[in-house]
Amino acid sequence: MKNNDVSIIGAGLIGSLLGIYLQKKGLNVSLYEKRPDLRDKKNATEGRSINMALSDRGWKALDKIGLREKVAPFAIPMYGRRIHDEHGETSFLPYGKENQAIYSISRGKFNHLLVDEAEKEGVKLNFEYFCEEIDISKTTMNFSLPNGEKLEKQSDVIIGADGAYSSLRDAMQKQTRLNYKQEYISHGYKELTIPPTAEGEFAMDPNALHIWPRGMFMLIALPNPDKSFTCTLFLPFDGAKVCFDKINDKSDVESVFRTFFDDAFLLMPNLVQEFFDNPTSSLINVECFPWLMNKSLLIGDACHAMVPFFGQGMNCGFEDCYILDGLIEKYGTTSWELVFEKFQKVRKPDTDAISQMARDNFIEMRDSVSNPKFIIRKRIEAKLHELHPKEWIPLYTMVTFSDMKYSDAYAQGQLQNEVMDKVMSDPLIMQNWHEVNYEDIISQIETAKMV
Amino acid sequence: MKNNDVSIIGAGLIGSLLGIYLQKKGLNVSLYEKRPDLRDKKNATEGRSINMALSDRGWKALDKIGLREKVAPFAIPMYGRRIHDEHGETSFLPYGKENQAIYSISRGKFNHLLVDEAEKEGVKLNFEYFCEEIDISKTTMNFSLPNGEKLEKQSDVIIGADGAYSSLRDAMQKQTRLNYKQEYISHGYKELTIPPTAEGEFAMDPNALHIWPRGMFMLIALPNPDKSFTCTLFLPFDGAKVCFDKINDKSDVESVFRTFFDDAFLLMPNLVQEFFDNPTSSLINVECFPWLMNKSLLIGDACHAMVPFFGQGMNCGFEDCYILDGLIEKYGTTSWELVFEKFQKVRKPDTDAISQMARDNFIEMRDSVSNPKFIIRKRIEAKLHELHPKEWIPLYTMVTFSDMKYSDAYAQGQLQNEVMDKVMSDPLIMQNWHEVNYEDIISQIETAKMV
Repeated sequence: MKNNDVSIIGAGLIGSLLGIYLQKKGLNVSLYEKRPDLRDKKNATEGRSINMALSDRGWKALDKIGLREKVAPFAIPMYGRRIHDEHGETSFLPYGKENQAIYSISRGKFNHLLVDEAEKEGVKLNFEYFCEEIDISKTTMNFSLPNGEKLEKQSDVIIGADGAYSSLRDAMQKQTRLNYKQEYISHGYKELTIPPTAEGEFAMDPNALHIWPRGMFMLIALPNPDKSFTCTLFLPFDGAKVCFDKINDKSDVESVFRTFFDDAFLLMPNLVQEFFDNPTSSLINVECFPWLMNKSLLIGDACHAMVPFFGQGMNCGFEDCYILDGLIEKYGTTSWELVFEKFQKVRKPDTDAISQMARDNFIEMRDSVSNPKFIIRKRIEAKLHELHPKEWIPLYTMVTFSDMKYSDAYAQGQLQNEVMDKVMSDPLIMQNWHEVNYEDIISQIETAKMV
Repeated sequence: MKNNDVSIIGAGLIGSLLGIYLQKKGLNVSLYEKRPDLRDKKNATEGRSINMALSDRGWKALDKIGLREKVAPFAIPMYGRRIHDEHGETSFLPYGKENQAIYSISRGKFNHLLVDEAEKEGVKLNFEYFCEEIDISKTTMNFSLPNGEKLEKQSDVIIGADGAYSSLRDAMQKQTRLNYKQEYISHGYKELTIPPTAEGEFAMDPNALHIWPRGMFMLIALPNPDKSFTCTLFLPFDGAKVCFDKINDKSDVESVFRTFFDDAFLLMPNLVQEFFDNPTSSLINVECFPWLMNKSLLIGDACHAMVPFFGQGMNCGFEDCYILDGLIEKYGTTSWELVFEKFQKVRKPDTDAISQMARDNFIEMRDSVSNPKFIIRKRIEAKLHELHPKEWIPLYTMVTFSDMKYSDAYAQGQLQNEVMDKVMSDPLIMQNWHEVNYEDIISQIETAKMV
C-alpha cells in the first residue's frame, strides 16, 4: 500500500480499535495519546466513565478482527431494563427477544485490552504526547512531552480519534471553514457505586440495566465483573427542585436519596463520601462538517460526540472504524481524500440520526419508562415484532440489535411512532390492549411506508 | 457608581460606541484592541470591509449620545436598490417611502470617528494589546504587546466586543458550558472598486445600492464620498458553474464579468489586478448561549455574528449598546450580573431573529429581486403600507426603518408572507395586480394575527 504512514491522535476505545484495523491492513500506524499508559497500575484513574453498553454494532466491529472471544469474558449481558419505583418495587422491561442483550463493560478494562491488542499487532504507542498544534496542509503534529521536550511528527495521514474536545478539530477550525455546533444539556452526571454484598454477591439482579426514573432526573446502575454496580446519577445542574446546585452537604445527599432512591440508598454505604469526592460532569453534543481536510479525518466523538442515553456512542464509533476499513478495502489508499470523502458522505446522516435519538431517549429513560401506558406501548410493539418480525421492528431493536443504517432506523421509527400514537389514543387501550388488531397496525405502517 | 472599572475588548465599531456610552455614564472605561491605532496614516488598511449600511436603529443609538451630526457628513443616502440586468438595463426598487434611506458609510472612517469620540470622552485607549488569556472568575486579562511584553490587567467587568472570533468567547468556552454554533455559508466575497469617472463624478447613480442579481451569485456596489463605489462580489467558493475556485486567471475574470456584469465591467479599469490582489473572504454565522459568565459579557458579533445581507450587523450591535445602556440606567451597576442577565434575556430572541432574516435575505438579494413577480409583490406591499400604515408594514421597513423588536418583525413578516403567497398564487396576478382587494388582504392579516 502507498501513503501508509498513519497517525492516530487519541488511544481511547475508538483510536485503539482503529489502530488495530489499520495495522492489520498493512499500514504503519502510530498512536498518540496525551494521557499516561492506562495499563500502568499507577495510572489507575480511568478518566471519564459511564460504563459502556456494548451492543451488536460494537460486536460486529470486534468480530471482523477476531476480538469477540477476548472481550466476552469482561462483558456482562443485560437483557432489559429493571425499573425501580419510589417504593422499591421493580419491574422488568426486556430490550428485545429472549436472548438479545446489551453488555456492560468497563471503559478502563476494555481500553486496556484494545491497547494491548494494538501493541501486539505492531501499532507504535506513544503515551503522554500532548498535541499542541497540527499543520494540516503539511500533516505535521507538534507534541509536548512531560519533560518539556517538544517533538514534531510528520505522517501521510492524520486521524483524530481524540474525543469531544478534539485537538485535530480545533486545528481544522482554524484552517478551514468548519461548521461546528456544541450543545450542553441542562443535566450533569455523577458516578457512584453499589458494592458487592457482605457475602461477595451482586446486590441486585446483575443481568439488567437498573433505572430509577424520576421524571426530570434519574439514577441508573450497570453491573461490573467484581460484582459491584457502577451507578450514574443524572440531575439538572440548577434551576430545578432536585439539582446538583442544591445538594451541598451530607444531609442534602441523604435526603434526596432517601426520598427518591431509597432501595438504592440502602445498598450504598459510601454514598456521601463518593458524592463529594467524585466530579460532577457535563454532557455535550457535538456536530461538525466537514469531517476531513486534505489528508486529515475526524472519527468517533471528535466529529459526533453524543449524549449517552442510547448507549451508542462507543458502538457508533466502532461502526465508524468498520465502515472506514471497508472503504479502504474498496478504494485503496492511493487517494486518502477519496476514502475520507466517501466516509463522511455515507456516515454523516447516520451519526446525525443517532445523536438525535440519543437526546430523545433521555426523556424515555428518565420519564416514560415509569409510565404504565408506555410499558403497554412497548408490549404491543414487542408483540408486533413477534408476529411480523420484518414489517415491524421496534426502534430500540433497529438501533441496538441490527446494523441497519441509523438514519433508516430513525425514519422508520418516526413512522412507527405515528402509528403507535394513534393506537394509544384509544381511551380504553389500557383495558383492551390484548385485543388490538395487529394486522391493521401492520397495514397502516405498510401504507405509511409507501407514501 | 460602584464597580465602575470596565474593560472592553475590541475597539471596532461596537466596542468604541459602547466605550462612549459607558464613559458618559460616569464609568471608567478602558478599550483594548489587538490592531494598531487605525487613525495613524501608516495603518491605513481597514481590515475587513463590506461598506456599512447605517439605518434607523444605528442612527437612534448615535442620537442618544449626540453623534448624528458628526456622522452625517460621511454617510450617503441610498433610497432603494438599483437592479442591473444582464443587458445593463436597470430598474429602481425603493426601500421604503420617499424619504426613507439607508446610508452608505466606510467602516474605516466611521471607526476612526468613534475612536476619536471615545478618546475625547476620556476612554483609555490601548492599541496593539493582543488578548492571550482571560480568567473570568478573577476578571483578569493577559495581553501581549508587540515588544513581547506581557501585561495582566484586572477590572470589575469585562465586555467582549471582539467580533466573530472573540477571545472572550473562547475563554468562556473553556470555563463554562457554552452552547455554541458557527456556520459558514457556501459563498465567499471579494471587494472590488468602481472608481470615479474621468470627470471626477460618480460612475452610476450614487443614491442607490446597486445589485446585479444572478441567481446563485451577485455583485453589489455602495457609494463612497470620494465618488467611487465599493463593489462586493458574492460567489460560491466551489462546486458551481461560476465560483471562486474556477476563476484563476485574467481571462477567467474577464469572461465572468463580461458575461454577467458587463455594464459594471466597463466601469472597472483595475478589475483584474484587484481581483487577484484582494482576499476572498468567508461569511460566518455565530450563535451562542449564554452571553455572560460572572461579570463578563459578550456583545455584538462576539455573540451573534451574522451574514451581511440585511445590512443589520452593525445596526444590531449599536442597538445592543443602546439597550445595555438603558438597563444600566434602570438597574445601576451594583449587580452587573443582573444587568447582563436582563440584557441576554431581552436580546437573544431578537438577535436570533435578525440572524435568520439576514440569511433569508441573501436569496432575496441574489435571486428574487430579478423576478418580475417579486417586484409586483413588493409594489403591492408598498401600496398596502401606504393605505394602512399601521396594519401592514413590509418586513424590510420593520427591520430597517423602525425600532420594533426584531423578533416581532420576524413573526409579523411570516404572517404577511403567508397572506402574500396566497395573493400571488392568482395565475392572473401579473395582469390584475392593480385591482387586488387591499381591504380583503388587510382583513386576512388581522385574522391571522388574532389566531
